[in-house]
Amino acid sequence: MEKRKALQDAEVASKTIARGLLIVHTGPGKGKSTAAWGLGLRALGHGWRIGVVQFIKGAWETGERAAFARFGDQVSWHTMGEGFTWETQDKARDMAAAQAAWAKARELMADEGLRLLILDELSIALRYDYLPLTEVIEVLKARRPELTIVVTGRNAKPDLIAAADCVTEMGAVKHHFAAGFKAQAGIEF
Amino acid sequence: MEKRKALQDAEVASKTIARGLLIVHTGPGKGKSTAAWGLGLRALGHGWRIGVVQFIKGAWETGERAAFARFGDQVSWHTMGEGFTWETQDKARDMAAAQAAWAKARELMADEGLRLLILDELSIALRYDYLPLTEVIEVLKARRPELTIVVTGRNAKPDLIAAADCVTEMGAVKHHFAAGFKAQAGIEF
Repeated sequence: MEKRKALQDAEVASKTIARGLLIVHTGPGKGKSTAAWGLGLRALGHGWRIGVVQFIKGAWETGERAAFARFGDQVSWHTMGEGFTWETQDKARDMAAAQAAWAKARELMADEGLRLLILDELSIALRYDYLPLTEVIEVLKARRPELTIVVTGRNAKPDLIAAADCVTEMGAVKHHFAAGFKAQAGIEF
Repeated sequence: MEKRKALQDAEVASKTIARGLLIVHTGPGKGKSTAAWGLGLRALGHGWRIGVVQFIKGAWETGERAAFARFGDQVSWHTMGEGFTWETQDKARDMAAAQAAWAKARELMADEGLRLLILDELSIALRYDYLPLTEVIEVLKARRPELTIVVTGRNAKPDLIAAADCVTEMGAVKHHFAAGFKAQAGIEF
C-alpha cells in the first residue's frame, strides 16, 4: 500500500499542465449532454460563468434549461437549432440555423468572463456538413487558454477527436427504449 | 423522408412504459458522475426533489456540491465516504463507511417525495465487497415505481448491469491526464 501511495503521489506530481480543455463526448449511449450539464454545474459551483449553445435541439423547455436559469447571469444559454432535418425536412434552413449557432459560439468564445462553453450537438451539425469542419476545429483549437469547451453529439469527426484533449465515448450497453420505455420528463429532457 | 418520419412516429408510439429507471454509468472514461449530476439538474428543473449519496469520496468541497446547494431542500446531499482504501489504508473503516452510506441510501429510497437518487461510486463499494451484492440489487430492484436511481463507478458488477434498465459504458478514447494535465477545479471536481 505504501509503495502504491508513493507511486500515486509521484504520478500526481508529474502532472503539471493546467489550462482549459477541449472535451468531446460522443458515442451512441446516453450521457453525452448530461455529462456536459454536470460539468456546467461543477463550474457554476466554482463561481465560473458558462455558456451553452444548442446546435440542433429546438426551442422546447427542458429541465436542464429551467435549472440553469436559477443561476441567472452566470449562464448564457442559446438554443439555436430547428430540430433534425428529418423533422424540418429543410436542409437549407438547418444549415442556416447551424451557422447562426456557430456565430453565437464564436461570440461566446470571445467573452473573456466565460470559463466553460458547451457546444451541444455540434458533432451532429459537423456530421451533416452544416459547418466547415476545418474552420471549426481551427477556431476551437485557438480558444483562450483558460476556456474549456465541451462538444457533444454522436459520430464525432476523427479530426475533432484528434484535436481534443479528452474524449469519452458513451457506449450503449443497454438502453431502456429498446425495452419499450418512452421518453420521460426528468430523464430524457 | 416521409416514410422515415412515419416509421419514427410508429416507433415512438410503440414505446409506452413510463416509470423510474435503474441507470448505471460505468467504464474507465470521464463522465460517469458528471452525467449523473446532469440528470440531477434536469430533474431539479422539473421541480423534482433529488438525493445524492457519495459512497467513496470524502468530505471535501466540490463545485457540484456547492452548485446543488443553491437548490436548498430540493437536494438531499450526503457525502459518506472516507476516500479509497489505498488512501485510508483501513478496510474495516471503509466497510463501515460504505454500510453507513447504504443505510442512508435506503432511508432516501423510503422518502416518497424523492424522484431521483444518485448513488455515486456505489459500484466501487460493490467491487471491493464492502456491501453484499445480492441484497443491494434486490433493494434497488424493489424501488418505488416512480423513483429513478443512478449508480456510478467503474467496473459495475455483471449482476447489477443485468438488473438495470439503462447502462452506459464511458470509454476513455483519450484522457488529458495521460498528456500531463493535472486535476483542475471546475473540471475534475
